[in-house]
Amino acid sequence: MFILFIMMKFDVSFTDIGLSPIVEISEFVNSVIAPKFERETGKPFIRIQRGDVGFKVPEYVVSALVKAYSDEKLMRYPKSGGEFVFKDAVLKTLSESGIDNLNPRNILCTHGGQEGLQLVFSLFRGGRAVGFDPVWSCMLENVLPYSRFKIDLVPFEGRDLSLNFRTLEDRLSKIPERQKNPHSKKGVLYLNNPHNPTGRIFSREELSRINELCLKYKFMIVSDEAYNDVVFDGKKHVSMLEFDGEHIVSVFTLSKTFSATGHRIGYTVCRDEDLIEKITRGNYTQTAGVATATQHAFSVALGDKEKKDEWISYMLSELQRRRDAIYEKLEDILPYEVYNPQGAFYFFLNLNPSFKNIPLRERDNFISNEFYKNGVVAIPGPAFSKGKKCETRDERKFRGYVRISYSMVNTDACLEGVERIQSSFSR
Amino acid sequence: MFILFIMMKFDVSFTDIGLSPIVEISEFVNSVIAPKFERETGKPFIRIQRGDVGFKVPEYVVSALVKAYSDEKLMRYPKSGGEFVFKDAVLKTLSESGIDNLNPRNILCTHGGQEGLQLVFSLFRGGRAVGFDPVWSCMLENVLPYSRFKIDLVPFEGRDLSLNFRTLEDRLSKIPERQKNPHSKKGVLYLNNPHNPTGRIFSREELSRINELCLKYKFMIVSDEAYNDVVFDGKKHVSMLEFDGEHIVSVFTLSKTFSATGHRIGYTVCRDEDLIEKITRGNYTQTAGVATATQHAFSVALGDKEKKDEWISYMLSELQRRRDAIYEKLEDILPYEVYNPQGAFYFFLNLNPSFKNIPLRERDNFISNEFYKNGVVAIPGPAFSKGKKCETRDERKFRGYVRISYSMVNTDACLEGVERIQSSFSR
Repeated sequence: MFILFIMMKFDVSFTDIGLSPIVEISEFVNSVIAPKFERETGKPFIRIQRGDVGFKVPEYVVSALVKAYSDEKLMRYPKSGGEFVFKDAVLKTLSESGIDNLNPRNILCTHGGQEGLQLVFSLFRGGRAVGFDPVWSCMLENVLPYSRFKIDLVPFEGRDLSLNFRTLEDRLSKIPERQKNPHSKKGVLYLNNPHNPTGRIFSREELSRINELCLKYKFMIVSDEAYNDVVFDGKKHVSMLEFDGEHIVSVFTLSKTFSATGHRIGYTVCRDEDLIEKITRGNYTQTAGVATATQHAFSVALGDKEKKDEWISYMLSELQRRRDAIYEKLEDILPYEVYNPQGAFYFFLNLNPSFKNIPLRERDNFISNEFYKNGVVAIPGPAFSKGKKCETRDERKFRGYVRISYSMVNTDACLEGVERIQSSFSR
Repeated sequence: MFILFIMMKFDVSFTDIGLSPIVEISEFVNSVIAPKFERETGKPFIRIQRGDVGFKVPEYVVSALVKAYSDEKLMRYPKSGGEFVFKDAVLKTLSESGIDNLNPRNILCTHGGQEGLQLVFSLFRGGRAVGFDPVWSCMLENVLPYSRFKIDLVPFEGRDLSLNFRTLEDRLSKIPERQKNPHSKKGVLYLNNPHNPTGRIFSREELSRINELCLKYKFMIVSDEAYNDVVFDGKKHVSMLEFDGEHIVSVFTLSKTFSATGHRIGYTVCRDEDLIEKITRGNYTQTAGVATATQHAFSVALGDKEKKDEWISYMLSELQRRRDAIYEKLEDILPYEVYNPQGAFYFFLNLNPSFKNIPLRERDNFISNEFYKNGVVAIPGPAFSKGKKCETRDERKFRGYVRISYSMVNTDACLEGVERIQSSFSR
């Protein structure tokens, strides 16, 4: 009885969540590791771990922020669900990609993409999801346990990270019909495109086949499109919203597009107005909405197509230059064919061949410590696959892998980071 | 089976919440009623319903916002739980009121006070609360149903809204020991001081007795101190934090203090570091935190004591002037002794004597419609007492009452509003 009493004190949603390992590692490195390294060596510590963005926020967006935050009329409560002007800018942006037949009631303005994901999953609290392996760690550590979801992960296969549709269909078909059913659906397919941490993008044909399977097995699709504007080699991002249907929810953030991670704004889109209305109420309950001035400023960021296109093209060319340089260097130092990312700004690297004399159990800690000694930090692979809510938990999954991010520092620093990684290889 | 299937589609947290009636009424009036009235009469519609604030944000705070939103270094992800500089400013502010023995781990920066309340109640999802009647509508419509809480309301008594400690003790003692126990406690006492919608403040002696009862019956105290800086007649706000103990959580917002409702920033304080750590993770999961630049700007707003004091003293003198003028007028037109609010910026009025020829069932709608015809809007009384989560539901409770707010418009407009209310009285 006494034990029961103690155990019940906090709701499980809160006791199961952690900080994302990315945040924990970043804050630990900033407060302990990096200052020590810099003091001792006089050299800058290289942070290539977090998906933060090191570009300046584009000037026209900063001007819009300054204007909005000086505007007395924009200091009052936001309209529930989002300011008209913000939703209009979102509709215009979607329309530029050929996504039409939407209205303001299909859109919710959120605190980054994160709140969009959290609200949609919380709306179906206790449900079942299927996703791809590896998966963004914040889903595993935060969104899924907070909403009491279980997830079943389908691995990408081979050097080109191909999709095995047979495995996907097998997993979708195995979620039993009588589970707690989100939105008259059996479960949620979670898709992240472009994909964190691999940099993989999903082709229109792949998305079409995924959509068909989800329709067949009555799954909603939650499509996390945080990196929609970070696609390389002249390719175009294909949004899940290009497919019709009320079962598709696409979650966007402006954090990556405008290098504005600290401003906390994004939007969630679904053709099911009822779903948007429900999560709008959740958003209102949680925070009363995104700061009014921020919404107005980012409606300018999205709405000024000429400046937006110019900015994105500059950002992409810089990121692509970094990717190319890093890819070339990695091809030199790693004994296998490295996957060349097509979007987002990560490499997900298998370092096992370079640390094979370290016992697997100790390998991730060993790698992190060697990296710290050499003045560099990356995120260990297991952060992208393990988690209390994974049904297919495999403790060995992605051990010896790391994710590196090339969004925070310039090409030279990225290359220096990769050299420090190489210096860490055990011989 | 089919019905079960349909009913399970959304989590009950989301299907039970609405928009706050204050938000629904405000948005309806803004889009439909006010434009029509203004078109037809050429006179301005008078909005004395919402607790939004009509003052300009103080100049030094606007400057701090503009500076922060121009600062490239403040455009990255916020530190989880809150920026150091923000927490330091909060500690300094609390210390100015003699509240010490706190450290940054006792504080979470939130999106207004609302997120603080939502997180604390969600942390104890499914628990039991005791509060006072009437109660802020957003608690009834949003926070409590979202966190699956039930609440038992203890009425204020008499013309001076006195506390009946015997009733309070009775209610506290009736929550059974074996209910789902928040934080090894039987339940949560929700206190709002200064009080919305009555403008009542709680004295140190009252708070002390409440605290003793909560200790005796193992209740946590969630003290909503949104209006801590809006206390009249030279009185000082007494924070619940002046009492010691890990069972006290005080929730603050900067919305009212700095007339900054649209900027969405507040803070929650508790001496139990474990509780703050848990809700920090919830805050991180939901939104990744409050915009970095906003935190830095409001650390200036809080930290510059001289300018802050000057601003608050100006705001208070203006609000008190309005209160005095409205009080005098209300005393003229209402056939009973009106309660003179000591804090916040509301009057909660019993209009039943002036509408007694309208059937009680129809009275609130009748009053609202008469108000609309006369170009004024207030919030009907039942919004502050009814709700799916009230255990002591009484459909007749506060029928014929309205809350008016004097925070949005100047004295003349407030008085004009009261005249329009008087014109609505049925003869």
